[in-house]
Amino acid sequence: MTNFQDDSTALHTDLYQINMAQTYWKDGKHNRKAVFELFFRKQPFGNGYAVFAGLERVINYLQEFRFSRSDLDYLEQEIGYDKDFIAYLRDLRFTGDVYSMQEGELVFGTEPIIRVEAPLAQAQLIETALLNIVNYQTLIATKAARIMHVLDEKDTAMEFGSRRAQEMDAAIWGSRAAYIGGFHATSNVRAGKKFGIPVAGTHAHSLVQAYRDEYEAFTKYAESHVDCTFLVDTYDTLKSGVPNAIKVAKEMGGKIRFNAIRLDSGDLAYLSKRAREMLDEAGFTETKITASNDLDEETIGALKAQGAKIDNWGIGTKLITAYDQPALGAVYKIVSVEDDNGEMVDTIKISANPEKVSTPGLKRVYRIINRVNQKSEGDYIALKDERPQEEERLKMFHPTYSYISKFVTDFDAIELQQPIFQSGELVYKLPSLQEIREHVTHSLTFLWEEYKRTHNPEAYPVDLSTACWNNKMELIDRIKAKLEVK
Amino acid sequence: MTNFQDDSTALHTDLYQINMAQTYWKDGKHNRKAVFELFFRKQPFGNGYAVFAGLERVINYLQEFRFSRSDLDYLEQEIGYDKDFIAYLRDLRFTGDVYSMQEGELVFGTEPIIRVEAPLAQAQLIETALLNIVNYQTLIATKAARIMHVLDEKDTAMEFGSRRAQEMDAAIWGSRAAYIGGFHATSNVRAGKKFGIPVAGTHAHSLVQAYRDEYEAFTKYAESHVDCTFLVDTYDTLKSGVPNAIKVAKEMGGKIRFNAIRLDSGDLAYLSKRAREMLDEAGFTETKITASNDLDEETIGALKAQGAKIDNWGIGTKLITAYDQPALGAVYKIVSVEDDNGEMVDTIKISANPEKVSTPGLKRVYRIINRVNQKSEGDYIALKDERPQEEERLKMFHPTYSYISKFVTDFDAIELQQPIFQSGELVYKLPSLQEIREHVTHSLTFLWEEYKRTHNPEAYPVDLSTACWNNKMELIDRIKAKLEVK
Repeated sequence: MTNFQDDSTALHTDLYQINMAQTYWKDGKHNRKAVFELFFRKQPFGNGYAVFAGLERVINYLQEFRFSRSDLDYLEQEIGYDKDFIAYLRDLRFTGDVYSMQEGELVFGTEPIIRVEAPLAQAQLIETALLNIVNYQTLIATKAARIMHVLDEKDTAMEFGSRRAQEMDAAIWGSRAAYIGGFHATSNVRAGKKFGIPVAGTHAHSLVQAYRDEYEAFTKYAESHVDCTFLVDTYDTLKSGVPNAIKVAKEMGGKIRFNAIRLDSGDLAYLSKRAREMLDEAGFTETKITASNDLDEETIGALKAQGAKIDNWGIGTKLITAYDQPALGAVYKIVSVEDDNGEMVDTIKISANPEKVSTPGLKRVYRIINRVNQKSEGDYIALKDERPQEEERLKMFHPTYSYISKFVTDFDAIELQQPIFQSGELVYKLPSLQEIREHVTHSLTFLWEEYKRTHNPEAYPVDLSTACWNNKMELIDRIKAKLEVK
Repeated sequence: MTNFQDDSTALHTDLYQINMAQTYWKDGKHNRKAVFELFFRKQPFGNGYAVFAGLERVINYLQEFRFSRSDLDYLEQEIGYDKDFIAYLRDLRFTGDVYSMQEGELVFGTEPIIRVEAPLAQAQLIETALLNIVNYQTLIATKAARIMHVLDEKDTAMEFGSRRAQEMDAAIWGSRAAYIGGFHATSNVRAGKKFGIPVAGTHAHSLVQAYRDEYEAFTKYAESHVDCTFLVDTYDTLKSGVPNAIKVAKEMGGKIRFNAIRLDSGDLAYLSKRAREMLDEAGFTETKITASNDLDEETIGALKAQGAKIDNWGIGTKLITAYDQPALGAVYKIVSVEDDNGEMVDTIKISANPEKVSTPGLKRVYRIINRVNQKSEGDYIALKDERPQEEERLKMFHPTYSYISKFVTDFDAIELQQPIFQSGELVYKLPSLQEIREHVTHSLTFLWEEYKRTHNPEAYPVDLSTACWNNKMELIDRIKAKLEVK
């Protein structure tokens, strides 16, 4: 612990952002207008789409953006920035414009999700926090939607991952992201309170161990709760757990609701089938079976293929950490900047890694919906002043394999980004979490099934307009020509 | 967002913990003394050891443990707990004892890291947060130590992962854990301020893109900073980036320190060797080469094998998310509980998954150091009242393959857990982060090299005392006998 005690999130940034801000400031360029776009390159988990989440926390962060007194002391005393630069930081608030897709929007690789149009130094300083928030929350919302895809309509999905989440924020914001992606409940009470998510859970093995007698533990639980789910695998699921649960439920009669039993280890396919028979034979045909134990879309799919009799799924580690791909590689790239004459000029990054070459220019993203079948033809990225809706035949072509192309007619071009901040003022009405969740379901109706399957989905087209593509090629040529001269 | 606005961490728990607390409370057993132990089963990443981290935040959490007014309102109004139980929760503070290994301790699978001796309901309520904190921080400290193992003494390791971390807490506490594991610096300024970790970083591609001219961007940076590291791959590393960096450094002369160039893409082995030659030819033999781009212990090892000329390593995603194993499976198990007569009795969990059978009884963990060579013979888990130091010949045997055994003489048995809380009062002097970091280095000196290698390390012995093993077998037999009777 240091002498700098308060903890503002304005300082939640990489040192190089502040170093660059100092360069811009010393050079008098800190207030030049710049445009940055946030996007990822590939959908995670090999999924056909991603589900955007994180905007609400981004908004909170930008509204609270200010360096605290102790932030400034630290930057001056420990890092050694100039007093004058510190004075500039002291008064800094976010005064830019932000455009963003709404939370719950389906989003695809390479297309801008958030666009920041702000004074250069400001736009730079907020990069790290925006990526930190959006990368994680989008990853988990996507993983949740992917898991929901293998569940049946009548199944219940519960997020149980807090103990394995990557620290506290991940547990909380991961719960919220899972709910956006379609989950029904979380075990985390703080997330339930903070976001109004339904909470779920009954008891652990420790209850049975504390009583050292399963029958007594179930009885005591039933005497203190109307809604009962009994965890049946502390000693032996079929010999002890299920019989004790049934015995207690019979004895308690109408005083409790025997909602479910829970299996947390062993052969879930076999145990669930036998337990189902035992419950049915005892007359508890409405009592559900909950399962947990390192579940994800793969194990759930396999259990379903084996005819497992599981109704409620408790999903922890594999969801909350996005175990099979724990990072989304979203980046934040400058695409346009004001020059000495006050004109906006586009800017590019070239790279030895082709997928790292940026696409210059302020862009808008449209979802092209076929009016006849109400299915999406793909997303269309155009430069600022293009009006795709006004085109009779829209040419859509693959930005890398440009021979792959099609013409679309009779379509709606729906712009996906909305104004969030104007000159630093919030101009966006935040939707409820319920609305965000419903937006996912609604958006998925526009997608052909081929894009939604969990294994080898068809690649959803994300195309550049001809003008946008030409602009990129011109900038690449210009940079290459400059390099050749040397 | 709900009507319950404040955000206390007491509610950072799973619903079932509160449900169990209610059962204990209604049954009058909430204040019975219980012993819980926190441990993981296997070291992550196939590493030969893990590095414990997270205690400081656990201490903060326990000290602040109290339900807020709005927590209680939420639990009563939304979950529907009884008023009387809510009144009990209102006054609840942590009043138990906690014993823990110190942060930076080397720790191995199955051995208790933290032991909580507390009133049953309290010990239950804190489980989720303790696991959430320790699982992540220990995972990252271990990953960092593993990466340090492939670096050379003169190398520098920098944590660059904030943008890919799983939300904000992971970025901050992950930085701290990386520093504990041996890293030298972080890019996250908030972590630097909060924990006193050195911060590192210079500029991004966006600086070059904002000026749209690499030479100008480097010059402007050099005019505003004495310490300069130039990122050289925005356009073309060898044709443009390195020559421009050299040119600017020559022009600026003594006005800057040309500390390094940074490579962030392309063939790092080839580029670093060519860049090294170019820097040396220009007389900048002291200028270092920094590299980044999805690095971890595997890629670093491969780069070193290829003779890459890299001095400073910027490591992001793969470290901060523990990409190849993003969760440590630590659990928290009840091992002993007060019975109706006020006696402590041991309790066990049996499982169809053998590794999930718990080891009953309050245990102490000793590191057995051979006095002759000052190397560790392994860790020894004994029951509370055993005194391994007093034994002339200590029998150490494998708890699963019990024929593997050895006798140790002339040893020091060092107890690894220390008192942290006594009756809810902190009795532990928190070490500085520097001391924690040094403890890792010191502890590693007791380990044979065979346990430290990153690939297929030898399994470090973690053995149960004979009394501890017998106690476990007896409890298993007793439970099995009870099941047979049915």
